[in-house]
Amino acid sequence: MLCEIFAFSETATLSIREIKANLRQRGMTLERLSKQIDFIIEIDKLKQVIRQTALTDATRQENIAEHSWHISLMALLLAEFSESAINVLRVLKMLLIHDLVEIDAGDTFLYDENKNNDKSEREKKAAERIFGLLPNDQAAAYISLWREFEEGVTPESKFAKAVDAMHPVLLCYSNQGWSWKKHNLSISTVIEKKTHIRDGSKELWKFTEELLHRANELGYFPLKSE
Amino acid sequence: MLCEIFAFSETATLSIREIKANLRQRGMTLERLSKQIDFIIEIDKLKQVIRQTALTDATRQENIAEHSWHISLMALLLAEFSESAINVLRVLKMLLIHDLVEIDAGDTFLYDENKNNDKSEREKKAAERIFGLLPNDQAAAYISLWREFEEGVTPESKFAKAVDAMHPVLLCYSNQGWSWKKHNLSISTVIEKKTHIRDGSKELWKFTEELLHRANELGYFPLKSE
Repeated sequence: MLCEIFAFSETATLSIREIKANLRQRGMTLERLSKQIDFIIEIDKLKQVIRQTALTDATRQENIAEHSWHISLMALLLAEFSESAINVLRVLKMLLIHDLVEIDAGDTFLYDENKNNDKSEREKKAAERIFGLLPNDQAAAYISLWREFEEGVTPESKFAKAVDAMHPVLLCYSNQGWSWKKHNLSISTVIEKKTHIRDGSKELWKFTEELLHRANELGYFPLKSE
Repeated sequence: MLCEIFAFSETATLSIREIKANLRQRGMTLERLSKQIDFIIEIDKLKQVIRQTALTDATRQENIAEHSWHISLMALLLAEFSESAINVLRVLKMLLIHDLVEIDAGDTFLYDENKNNDKSEREKKAAERIFGLLPNDQAAAYISLWREFEEGVTPESKFAKAVDAMHPVLLCYSNQGWSWKKHNLSISTVIEKKTHIRDGSKELWKFTEELLHRANELGYFPLKSE
């Protein structure tokens, strides 16, 4: 069929070119889509990376995939409390990808000083490998977005970090301090690590601080502050 | 201090009003935020609702919270393949909340004809209870968004539904047909339930269809099509 079209008219010759262009286009599309699909399948592993926070009913510890879903929806609902005007889509993009590096680098517990020493180097390598599975333009865009989140300087990253930091407090308050007890923490240690919530939202920080004090009154912190 | 200000000047009287207004404002903010936090804590239960799809390595079945994260990120990466122009933020909002009703209504397996009969009524009630925890304006907005997803008429809901339907095919292909085998399905049954992917994206449908045929060649479907 293609030969027939090719042989008999100038228009047909164009058609051949078009068909070839379409096939090439389809090849390029398929190559691009295949990379995206490889990435999507690879990040399924995030469902196996376990955090130190337990679910509200404390039946098990939460994994990073479900944590990422929870904070994305949280950011959507609480965006009105952001300290500065924010692009909510950008915040969601950040939160959906912010912990992907932990597929390779593992979850580093906020209060583990030793592991936090080489965290940055481990996570940088992980970002390059994991986002590197994507087509070049998307890989570059998402690595840049992940860095923006890590640096926490822009309004979007400040708010994203605020929500990310507030989330375990809500879960931990609900399960009567499961991980505060497990790791023998005091309220002052937690407050010290969480005050940056204020940079994203004064109102959310005020609420979080009140919740932490209430948790302390209820005996959810095993260690007394000095 | 307040009494002193109150007693001595007209401006001070205004200040008292302002202080009272601020306290009222803080009260209103707190009431609103408390509702949002109640909702956020309630939806933690989605992490306990189990789907019929297993993870790529088939070590366990996936829950809806992590599924919702996965398809949100998938939609973000594949938005360029949407059949029509779409508002990506709207798609993400839909995907983040689309299965919340299953906290009350449970997960209804796509191929379970009996359970699908009263699914709509069960899910409507669930939507009213769960989104009803939010402040009125957000409750109304999210119920409306959930309905839009269910109806699948707008470009955003068509694309969101396409990604939601494509996702288990990727997982199932990766784990060599774990749930196709478990539920004794044939490729034609799966294709019949998935063709609507085409309404959201012809390219993603073409890819999914090719993947299903490849899966069939590899023996991932236990039941032969008639």
